[in-house]
Amino acid sequence: MNILVVGTLAYDDVQTPAGKRTHQLGGSAAYFSLAASYFADAAIVSIVGNDFRDEDWSMLEDRGIDMSGVEMADGNTFHWSGSYMEDINSAETLNTELNVFDQFQPHISAEHSSHPYLFLANSDPELQRFVLESMADRPKLVAGDTMNHWIAEKRDAVSKIFSLLDLVIINEGEAQLYSGDRNLAVSADSLLQTGLRHAVIKRGEYGAALFGEQLLFATPALPIKHVVDPTGAGDSFAGGFMGYLTSIGKLTPDTMRQAVIVGSAVASITVEGFGTESLKSLTPQKIQQRYDDFMELTRFTSEDTPRTLPLKPLKELK
Amino acid sequence: MNILVVGTLAYDDVQTPAGKRTHQLGGSAAYFSLAASYFADAAIVSIVGNDFRDEDWSMLEDRGIDMSGVEMADGNTFHWSGSYMEDINSAETLNTELNVFDQFQPHISAEHSSHPYLFLANSDPELQRFVLESMADRPKLVAGDTMNHWIAEKRDAVSKIFSLLDLVIINEGEAQLYSGDRNLAVSADSLLQTGLRHAVIKRGEYGAALFGEQLLFATPALPIKHVVDPTGAGDSFAGGFMGYLTSIGKLTPDTMRQAVIVGSAVASITVEGFGTESLKSLTPQKIQQRYDDFMELTRFTSEDTPRTLPLKPLKELK
Repeated sequence: MNILVVGTLAYDDVQTPAGKRTHQLGGSAAYFSLAASYFADAAIVSIVGNDFRDEDWSMLEDRGIDMSGVEMADGNTFHWSGSYMEDINSAETLNTELNVFDQFQPHISAEHSSHPYLFLANSDPELQRFVLESMADRPKLVAGDTMNHWIAEKRDAVSKIFSLLDLVIINEGEAQLYSGDRNLAVSADSLLQTGLRHAVIKRGEYGAALFGEQLLFATPALPIKHVVDPTGAGDSFAGGFMGYLTSIGKLTPDTMRQAVIVGSAVASITVEGFGTESLKSLTPQKIQQRYDDFMELTRFTSEDTPRTLPLKPLKELK
Repeated sequence: MNILVVGTLAYDDVQTPAGKRTHQLGGSAAYFSLAASYFADAAIVSIVGNDFRDEDWSMLEDRGIDMSGVEMADGNTFHWSGSYMEDINSAETLNTELNVFDQFQPHISAEHSSHPYLFLANSDPELQRFVLESMADRPKLVAGDTMNHWIAEKRDAVSKIFSLLDLVIINEGEAQLYSGDRNLAVSADSLLQTGLRHAVIKRGEYGAALFGEQLLFATPALPIKHVVDPTGAGDSFAGGFMGYLTSIGKLTPDTMRQAVIVGSAVASITVEGFGTESLKSLTPQKIQQRYDDFMELTRFTSEDTPRTLPLKPLKELK
């Protein structure tokens, strides 16, 4: 099964307590497609400048990613600079240069327009809507992301695209901004009221939660001692999440739960290296191992631990 | 099996977005013993003033709690005032009056000194050590709590008492202050280096984690839409955690995991009412139901979801 992502390919400069990198491959579509590529056939629709390195293009192609929807334009590739020196869990944006992305008009080919799984990475909600309306068939599953900027500046367009998606995969801070409430469950309600079937709320070092009708799932994050670079964790999560669902081809409350764990597992690997370093050289074994680590991290029933708690009957009390 | 808690009985004034209460029963020993009382026979060692209400004393006794170690002294009971108006997840202390607690010299009776489970609630680490040294037999399990104040003011004494405990049950902020590092796993390492066998780190709305040799467990919190009053959540967690272990009488990595869930379940009930309101009128059924809610919240394997992920073999790639 095929999955399409529409988002950025970028060059990032990042500074973290573990070091500094300039011009490293990044962007939502890069992280998403690499993560998804371990499960499914991923295709990117994006735009790059003529500074985009051949080696980065080849690396993505070598991972089996369909690059036919990536336009190359005169100018420079999207460029982001950020620092995690103050707080490893929160990027401080130092500079954003849209460059060729400023003129991005996504063209969805006939082949891509019938891909059954679609991820609309963070971008202008009107552009996200344009892409969705360009699809020949309604995909089996459409998920989307957004950011604080669009919630603050184009709230109505954000609500509109949410109402057209099956699910959002967004940060807790974004959910709180959208709902105007700090409470996780209240924020999720506010998202679901737009007509979304599901909301996945990413909580960084604290894990992730999944809300839907009759569905409430949450997981902690795997404690990682040496976080090297959190850039791309969220898009890797989305790529693992959607890639798993694409591969398994079955959308049930239980496959959605497991997708959250797969997303969390892949994201936990991404942050252990700079940029796409860890993600591009993964093995299926490593992903399976990390998934097993989540099983072990969160399990609490066993032969030692009865499902019925050893509670005192009330009658023992006066 | 019997469990002993040494801590405060208090009257609290609290203000939360849900309302205001003055002079409500509180204190670490009240929350802890009420939570533990659903599983085990709990005894309190504490001190109250002669303003302590008969109805509060009777309520605790009616829950089967052994109050014989509670001294009544001339003066007023420990009094705390706090507000959650700025942030429901973090108390702002407006006033603390130690009152009779200032002269608290715990006397551990012969009977209490052989209780096999002991919880040293937050207090001066030197007082905690005095209590531990007053025990006739080394308890089967000794757990303790502390607070930022002691870590900042009496760090050596805190390290000393940690080295004498089996486990700590502390807040993430306290673990970070003790370790000087924001990272959860690094903070836990720093605690375990004191000689502790286990560290339970409470993360409020984000859940809890358990660290030990060859043991890493984490759980999210149950999303609660209407948090009425978070006061006592941490001590209720400890009471549920220790009460469960006391009742089951078996200390294994798996019973410790389940104890974290029981603690989380009881804490999630506490915050749904003011003070001890929810906790004092619980039923075993309600605790079991909340425990089942945690099972459902966190499970992600089922017949629909294979334990071996549907990953692409690497050979499919160039």
